[in-house]
Amino acid sequence: MQPSTVRTLSDLRERFVEQLADVAADRQPRGLYEPIEYILRIGGKRVRPLLALLAARICGDDEELRAGMPVALAVETFHNFTLLHDDIMDDSPLRRGQPTVHERWDVNTAILSGDLMLIQAYEHLCAVPVRGRIADLLCTFNRVATGVCEGQQFDVDFEVRHDVSIEDYLHMIELKTAVLLGGALELGALAAGASAETASHLYAFGRLTGLAFQLHDDLLDTFGDGVETGKLTGNDIIRNKKTFLYLKTLEGLNHTDKQELIHWFSHSPADPATKVARVTALMQQGDVPQLVAQLRDEFQAEAYAHLDEVKGNPRYKQVLRELTENLLQRNS
Amino acid sequence: MQPSTVRTLSDLRERFVEQLADVAADRQPRGLYEPIEYILRIGGKRVRPLLALLAARICGDDEELRAGMPVALAVETFHNFTLLHDDIMDDSPLRRGQPTVHERWDVNTAILSGDLMLIQAYEHLCAVPVRGRIADLLCTFNRVATGVCEGQQFDVDFEVRHDVSIEDYLHMIELKTAVLLGGALELGALAAGASAETASHLYAFGRLTGLAFQLHDDLLDTFGDGVETGKLTGNDIIRNKKTFLYLKTLEGLNHTDKQELIHWFSHSPADPATKVARVTALMQQGDVPQLVAQLRDEFQAEAYAHLDEVKGNPRYKQVLRELTENLLQRNS
Repeated sequence: MQPSTVRTLSDLRERFVEQLADVAADRQPRGLYEPIEYILRIGGKRVRPLLALLAARICGDDEELRAGMPVALAVETFHNFTLLHDDIMDDSPLRRGQPTVHERWDVNTAILSGDLMLIQAYEHLCAVPVRGRIADLLCTFNRVATGVCEGQQFDVDFEVRHDVSIEDYLHMIELKTAVLLGGALELGALAAGASAETASHLYAFGRLTGLAFQLHDDLLDTFGDGVETGKLTGNDIIRNKKTFLYLKTLEGLNHTDKQELIHWFSHSPADPATKVARVTALMQQGDVPQLVAQLRDEFQAEAYAHLDEVKGNPRYKQVLRELTENLLQRNS
Repeated sequence: MQPSTVRTLSDLRERFVEQLADVAADRQPRGLYEPIEYILRIGGKRVRPLLALLAARICGDDEELRAGMPVALAVETFHNFTLLHDDIMDDSPLRRGQPTVHERWDVNTAILSGDLMLIQAYEHLCAVPVRGRIADLLCTFNRVATGVCEGQQFDVDFEVRHDVSIEDYLHMIELKTAVLLGGALELGALAAGASAETASHLYAFGRLTGLAFQLHDDLLDTFGDGVETGKLTGNDIIRNKKTFLYLKTLEGLNHTDKQELIHWFSHSPADPATKVARVTALMQQGDVPQLVAQLRDEFQAEAYAHLDEVKGNPRYKQVLRELTENLLQRNS
């Protein structure tokens, strides 16, 4: 990224985190609000709120940061609500290296605090200064939030299904991750008074970038450099996770190889080295990594075509472009 | 209730239940939507949506049923969302005589379906036909929903606290139950274009009626006729539930009697007959049932004073009055 982009992003992030810290401070009962403050404080790269703030800046003037901030807070609060409840469902002990809320407190606290976070996300929408825009924001937010829940359920369903098509899988990751990235941009644009057309191009840009990012992440998991990614290479294979890579490989294999792949994905050997090596070889046999990388690049090219259609501040369009390019280059 | 009131209420209830049945029909993934259809179908007396529909009729003309219906759906969906998640937290096996969602499906399904119900409640707000009213409805809905979650947490906190004041307790039941009754009326009024003043009188009417109703319910539990109420008399005492009745009794007792009451509430004998008899006697000793009944009647009188201030359709005001009177007379 250009130094100016890095600076812009870190300025926006800092202003966002300041606002976030003000949100839940000192509200009662503490047993309900403390876990919310906790999960919002430990949290991540703030990609979604940055997307919302950038969209607001692209579509409005600098003053419109006032409009973008409430929706940035809404999407980040919503995203963390999903993490909090997903962690209960997956019984995950850690989130970003810290104990999860249901571990540090208990499951009931995590359920109720999560519920309140979802309500708080909607509360942020009420703070958008131009009142006439709130109805549109609410409807957009509902559409996005519904999609994310549906995606989560499809993901759960797919774990036990053996007939998941590539189309089903793409639909699932679209709902589960891409819709919220697109939604963050669309909400930021609408909050700043963008036309429906502009907002919809930004949504499409975010959605397609999200799809590209998910494929990129799948590739990195299996073919990335573990030292650089900080993750165990082949982790998805070890956990029998039916990623796009897996489904695409399965599609192209002959009967014998297909049986072997299914066999590897139906058990978890104590030493996974042979399993990872064999599955990786089966994937490479049909040039699947190349096919997946190609699809990723197609999604990304289509995403940029939508961004090109957006009429707005070119400087912030450039920052948005660099931010997403950076996400896709990360550790590859 | 007058026969005409019974007819009006059953008409409204029928129209409401028809609309409710249309809501989740055939949406995918079924694993997410089926539990929602299930809990909405088995559900109750529909008091909250009736309040919303009546408020809309009081404040608007008959056409305004179109405006009242979305908020009626929103409050009923929200109420059932709270039941669904509360049942997980309490590990309740039954709800209205049917298996709870987490029993019939599982906890994860109950969490995620509940989350989606909360989102659906907000989706209903988007269907209010006069778009300019949606922002106010959203902010009111957020305030109410936040209160209900806070009330639930206070209730959980109070179970293990020994210093709960009567004020604390009233604040808790206000949040946990009264706020949503008031909110249903306020939302119905706002959806039909009522002034802020009228909406706030209807809110106060609902809130005070809710408080009266809670005290009435506490009285019935201990002093009602078990055959008529269909509940075990003394159930709150058996479960060591610190109701208003308990706290008020505690306040007035001398040191020895106080110790006895605390003693009874700190264990659960296999045969509770002596416990129920002794605790009931301690309550009657200070005329506590009369004091509680008096407070209930004061709340209700204050509620009607607010209803009198509401400018609107007198016929539906009368129906609302009879509905709430009926709730308070039930089985007493």
